[in-house]
Amino acid sequence: MSKVVNTLKEVIKLCGLKEGMRVSFHHHLRNGDHVINMVLDEIADMGYKDITVNASSVFDIHAPIVNHIRNNVVTALEVNYMGAVVGREISKGIMNKPVDFRSHGGRPSDIESGKTPIDIAFIAAPTSDNMGNCTGKYGASACGSLGYAFADAMYAKKVVVITDNLVDYPLYDFSISETYVDYVVSVDKIGDPTGIVSGTTKITRDPVGLMMASYATKVIQHSGLLQNGFSFQTGAGGASLAVAKYLKELMLKENIRGSFGMGGITGYLVDMLEAGCFETLMDVQCFDLKAVESIRENKRHREVTASHYASPTVKSAIVNNLDVVILGATQIDTNFNVNVHTDSNGYIMGGSGGHSDTAAGAKLTMIVAPLTRARLSLITDRVLCISTPGKTVDVLVTQRGIAVNPLRDDLIARLKEAKLPIIDINELKNIAEKITGIPNDVKLGDKVVGNVIYRDGTVIDKIRSVVV
Amino acid sequence: MSKVVNTLKEVIKLCGLKEGMRVSFHHHLRNGDHVINMVLDEIADMGYKDITVNASSVFDIHAPIVNHIRNNVVTALEVNYMGAVVGREISKGIMNKPVDFRSHGGRPSDIESGKTPIDIAFIAAPTSDNMGNCTGKYGASACGSLGYAFADAMYAKKVVVITDNLVDYPLYDFSISETYVDYVVSVDKIGDPTGIVSGTTKITRDPVGLMMASYATKVIQHSGLLQNGFSFQTGAGGASLAVAKYLKELMLKENIRGSFGMGGITGYLVDMLEAGCFETLMDVQCFDLKAVESIRENKRHREVTASHYASPTVKSAIVNNLDVVILGATQIDTNFNVNVHTDSNGYIMGGSGGHSDTAAGAKLTMIVAPLTRARLSLITDRVLCISTPGKTVDVLVTQRGIAVNPLRDDLIARLKEAKLPIIDINELKNIAEKITGIPNDVKLGDKVVGNVIYRDGTVIDKIRSVVV
Repeated sequence: MSKVVNTLKEVIKLCGLKEGMRVSFHHHLRNGDHVINMVLDEIADMGYKDITVNASSVFDIHAPIVNHIRNNVVTALEVNYMGAVVGREISKGIMNKPVDFRSHGGRPSDIESGKTPIDIAFIAAPTSDNMGNCTGKYGASACGSLGYAFADAMYAKKVVVITDNLVDYPLYDFSISETYVDYVVSVDKIGDPTGIVSGTTKITRDPVGLMMASYATKVIQHSGLLQNGFSFQTGAGGASLAVAKYLKELMLKENIRGSFGMGGITGYLVDMLEAGCFETLMDVQCFDLKAVESIRENKRHREVTASHYASPTVKSAIVNNLDVVILGATQIDTNFNVNVHTDSNGYIMGGSGGHSDTAAGAKLTMIVAPLTRARLSLITDRVLCISTPGKTVDVLVTQRGIAVNPLRDDLIARLKEAKLPIIDINELKNIAEKITGIPNDVKLGDKVVGNVIYRDGTVIDKIRSVVV
Repeated sequence: MSKVVNTLKEVIKLCGLKEGMRVSFHHHLRNGDHVINMVLDEIADMGYKDITVNASSVFDIHAPIVNHIRNNVVTALEVNYMGAVVGREISKGIMNKPVDFRSHGGRPSDIESGKTPIDIAFIAAPTSDNMGNCTGKYGASACGSLGYAFADAMYAKKVVVITDNLVDYPLYDFSISETYVDYVVSVDKIGDPTGIVSGTTKITRDPVGLMMASYATKVIQHSGLLQNGFSFQTGAGGASLAVAKYLKELMLKENIRGSFGMGGITGYLVDMLEAGCFETLMDVQCFDLKAVESIRENKRHREVTASHYASPTVKSAIVNNLDVVILGATQIDTNFNVNVHTDSNGYIMGGSGGHSDTAAGAKLTMIVAPLTRARLSLITDRVLCISTPGKTVDVLVTQRGIAVNPLRDDLIARLKEAKLPIIDINELKNIAEKITGIPNDVKLGDKVVGNVIYRDGTVIDKIRSVVV
């Protein structure tokens, strides 16, 4: 009575992999993940071609996929996020088919609806029993939440759990249950702990970052949303973390008890939970060791599925109830459209992740970013790629002032009354261009290398190749 | 942003109930449940006819359903268990269609496969937030696990949560998530706590029961299964609980650390968990207050879905890994077929529940029952209803000796060597009949009032009407 199979090769055969099939992966092991590479290497060794890879994200560690693409082992790619190393190659046009970029909510929605049916899901599981009850909370490769992997496990035709910590049946604190699992493969290491989670994620010490964080916190303070029941998501970037720190101080000072913190969870949100700023954390992904420890030990730190987090097609998702989200941008245009897919030269180096999902759901979506980077303005006339539509973005915070989407008259009034440095986004663009000069138009190629599939299923932008 | 609807009437309209539809209920509130009655009363008041009711179980408190059947409001009934009060009326032939009896594993399997598609699921939830994240662990009507309700929530077209403890969003310790829930209705009381769980379930003091429990424990002791990793399920009857008590003493004495206890969970299994006899409890249903408290507080006491517990069609269920199950019987025949659907007169007063599921899965299935009841022999030539096929039953323990299924030569040898009072089941029947006399054949009617649908989907027996 065991589902354990000795080798990846054997399990790939047992699953009946065929050319043209779609295999899936999740990205909780982040830049420490060994599983995508080991599975694709095996598939390549076995001589398969024409495989579609659906991975919630691809990081720099997954550079070997470039070779599998060049060799036609992988002929289609579907991701929510793509690191710069693989992104650069995709931008050069190495694939015949454009990469389909979805959001963290859109991906499980399309898996569940059958738009992107998964033939074989490979679940990287830091701990599993021999029947496939598995979790990310324990083991040498512990990553915390397995939120993105649930749709894969629940809907794939065949499900393979790959673990480096096989424990006695039954693993009681399972996240994904054996009811969905066909096979379990035990390997030496599913990942490199130093790449899976940061030891600690760190707040910026850069005065520009701290100034932006201070502005962002004041926007929240005067938004009318900061009251008991307040809910919040922020990213893992240095300035975003500084917002969490300032917000915590403010909430404690004003004795405000929020309802939930959400998203990719860092130690700073754990601090807020433990300080009583929130009743609970809803966690689809852990970013650091403190978050992993917390989700393992603290019942109020709750693992949620990607669908629960952000799917547009479930009966309701948590993003629908979100008050404030702090997000980043590589570019934002004067219509508040945000680019997080490419850099200012058009090279792919990111993706929506939960960006467009939370922007659509939150009552206040705030972009926090420095006005210039590498002598280029953050603000453009038209972003190179629309990742998140401007109508879902409320505020841009830079070190030189705060621009509010004109659609949000109410908010402009509130923030002006609070005497915050509100400035028209066009003026802010002018300020930036006084520093950087007016940039030359980026010359892109004709080839479409990426489709940005918005959470409602429409292609809201196409990413073009970069002319090298 | 709320799914709360003011009245049952309104929610039934919003769900678009139509004649011919199937509505579903779960039975964790047991004989304290108010939800089935309040929903069916409302449906009747609104003038609907021809509704199919799929309920994991129907108890005596649900006697009002008899009127709804007589009035053609409810024209088809699908249950895993039926208490004697409703059962008696069904046995008299009041329905045109036979009741479909499934097992606790077969029911979710048929819901998930679409054999019994649910149009509207009504989830009795002791605690819920306004978006439908809900649980049985908290509230005045706390019942612990909601194991049987998951398939309903996950697969029904419309899902209504009915609660008497509406809490702030988000309820972090939810069992069923908002992703599945359409509406939430808040009512005064979903049930009567005294009927939901017993204050404490009690071990028998009857010397006959204690003798049987002692025999059963010895069978386990000498079965070869009682070693580290041992897994166990027992019922909530007095003798079954006594087995748990004796087994606990034995395991502690022999320093055996089992893996899991399973099933409907009582305080006695909680005691075994806390004493270290098991690593974990896998709980699809709580029988008493101690179990409810334990599942709320102890992480090792894990809620599982009915599919995970026992479905024959998921990729694996916990029953597949079960070592020993202790079960009851109203009748057993000389081929070891067991009846738990009717009494010796043919009246419906029970159902499979998890009986046939655990018997199919367990390495050792043991029936513990007194040799005679109400001056009738337990053992017959042919049970009035085959609930559980004899080939899945290994041992019958009575106060007058232990009969082992001849298919289990290995076990007969072991138990004989241990000098246990092994006796042929035919001889045991003779002993009983010396006490009771040979019973008259029960005269049943021609009408089929129930189909016993085995976990593999086949109708293994038909229950006939009782001639009054």
